Amino acid sequence: MSGPPDEFEWIARGLAPLAEGAPEAFGLLDDAAVIASRPGYDLVVSKDAMVEGVHFLKDDPPDLVARKLIRVNLSDLAAKAADPYGYFLAVAWPGNYGWPEREAFARGLAEDQARFGLKLFGGDTVATPGPLTASLTILGWTPAGCMVRRAGARPGDVIFVSGTIGDGYLGLLAAKGSTVIKSYQQADWLADRYRLPQPRLDLGQALRDHAHAALDVSDGLIADAAKLAHASQVGLEIDLDQMPLSEPAAAWLAQAVDPLAARIALATGGDDYEIVCAVAAESEPAILSAAKAARIALTRIGVATAGSGVRVMAGGREVEVAQPGYVHR
Amino acid sequence: MSGPPDEFEWIARGLAPLAEGAPEAFGLLDDAAVIASRPGYDLVVSKDAMVEGVHFLKDDPPDLVARKLIRVNLSDLAAKAADPYGYFLAVAWPGNYGWPEREAFARGLAEDQARFGLKLFGGDTVATPGPLTASLTILGWTPAGCMVRRAGARPGDVIFVSGTIGDGYLGLLAAKGSTVIKSYQQADWLADRYRLPQPRLDLGQALRDHAHAALDVSDGLIADAAKLAHASQVGLEIDLDQMPLSEPAAAWLAQAVDPLAARIALATGGDDYEIVCAVAAESEPAILSAAKAARIALTRIGVATAGSGVRVMAGGREVEVAQPGYVHR
Repeated sequence: MSGPPDEFEWIARGLAPLAEGAPEAFGLLDDAAVIASRPGYDLVVSKDAMVEGVHFLKDDPPDLVARKLIRVNLSDLAAKAADPYGYFLAVAWPGNYGWPEREAFARGLAEDQARFGLKLFGGDTVATPGPLTASLTILGWTPAGCMVRRAGARPGDVIFVSGTIGDGYLGLLAAKGSTVIKSYQQADWLADRYRLPQPRLDLGQALRDHAHAALDVSDGLIADAAKLAHASQVGLEIDLDQMPLSEPAAAWLAQAVDPLAARIALATGGDDYEIVCAVAAESEPAILSAAKAARIALTRIGVATAGSGVRVMAGGREVEVAQPGYVHR
Repeated sequence: MSGPPDEFEWIARGLAPLAEGAPEAFGLLDDAAVIASRPGYDLVVSKDAMVEGVHFLKDDPPDLVARKLIRVNLSDLAAKAADPYGYFLAVAWPGNYGWPEREAFARGLAEDQARFGLKLFGGDTVATPGPLTASLTILGWTPAGCMVRRAGARPGDVIFVSGTIGDGYLGLLAAKGSTVIKSYQQADWLADRYRLPQPRLDLGQALRDHAHAALDVSDGLIADAAKLAHASQVGLEIDLDQMPLSEPAAAWLAQAVDPLAARIALATGGDDYEIVCAVAAESEPAILSAAKAARIALTRIGVATAGSGVRVMAGGREVEVAQPGYVHR
């Protein structure tokens, strides 16, 4: 089939299969979807957008772009300890995205919605003279009143982060072809971490049971820690020496000319999609044990204090961080 | 203030006021919003996107663009007989949209959310090297099980349309500076109809009480009638001679060299945001009286039949329509 598909062919062939089994979606044949009330539960809703050349690279395969879009939204649900339910998708297609690219995009959606237990409920398909632009509105459920918020951290709380930090930063460099990562194998692994974040949904129960506050790291550990501090009206002290690193990131850091600047780059680079959470000191053993059961590493990186803002520590001293994270303009 | 605002300034100063009074939104300081369950009601959700140069003109004032975005989404709620509740907004800003343009956009949102009873619940703000691109996810409520669907029309039903058809088509021409509309006053009125659709929310009760099926006219009367026919598995017969026209549209039609082609252009041009609905013949007096009480004109334009597709009639004969509506690619 040549030329771009029209909206209706695309919905019928590309998207309707993604709504199969979802009575909410009416086979994508209606103006709207319907979400029936679920007494005892709250609906948790988040919406994130991505733009070609800004949030992903021009040559990134469309199936990975679709999966990243689903995953950055799932990461928000993970941070709120919500269970995935469904999503709405709006895509503005440039003219050079024909059937093969769109089918790859739909394949990526299908793969990850099966993996994470989501269905497509609706959305919009439009044309654009600009770059591929997509937004996804994700819906999840939590028991009523149990969403873990950004507000809620208290002075004295211990601050944890899941997984490893800085792989997103190095992965973007690797994906762009930078040679700062010498090992091909490590460069590939890092680029994968950039292109395909792992939403930490399995941490949900542990967060619900033990966390006072949580959010996911998208703009950079320090920038996002500052958002948690602001919403909770506490200060945070984050120790860069305790920041968990992957083997490739540690190897890169070991070769850095300026190790402190390199460590700060990892802590401010963003695109990690790990979870930062605040936990009462006495709950530390319990959340560590719950995270272990969920097979997700959780590392203590700091404490909450009275005050405001983020103090960044390294080598036992406070360090200056000029740009705490990625800034969208 | 010079230069584009960063994401955080923009959220705090431009968007947070739009979330005031909405506990769902946590002051836009969290990763997600929470919608509490509302027993006895269904949540109706729709999502539409708009792209500069495709869905609105490059020079359209930002406040009107924002209001159109809200209104095209509200039009979906109107067609489903749902009551407006809240929305999520994702905007990809080009570099040339600074504070004044963004503040105008927020002012437009504020004006229409106050008018229609909506609050901002969340969303995303990103940068784009391309055209202004925005998507809005709108939420409304209906009593459980009462959403008016596209499916549901039955052979023998009468087909009605609200307001007038073709003003969107002529309004786009007028907004682009075309001189086919001779009267300045009429050209302005039509351009306003294009830029600022009137969502027919006041028709909700009438639709809930009397309509078997409904949808809104965005791509063109004939194209959208075909969607209703398809979803309902009926045929529709639409009589162009009965199609309701505004005074400016009627004046334009009266001067047309080829009146049939002109009438077809009005019926296929799109951007009308009127409601098409199917009603049992015996309910005709009741829905007309309900629409009159709501001060919305409702005009009978056809009937549903056994079969499929749309037969377009004019001058008592079937006419050929090559392109039934706007096609997004």
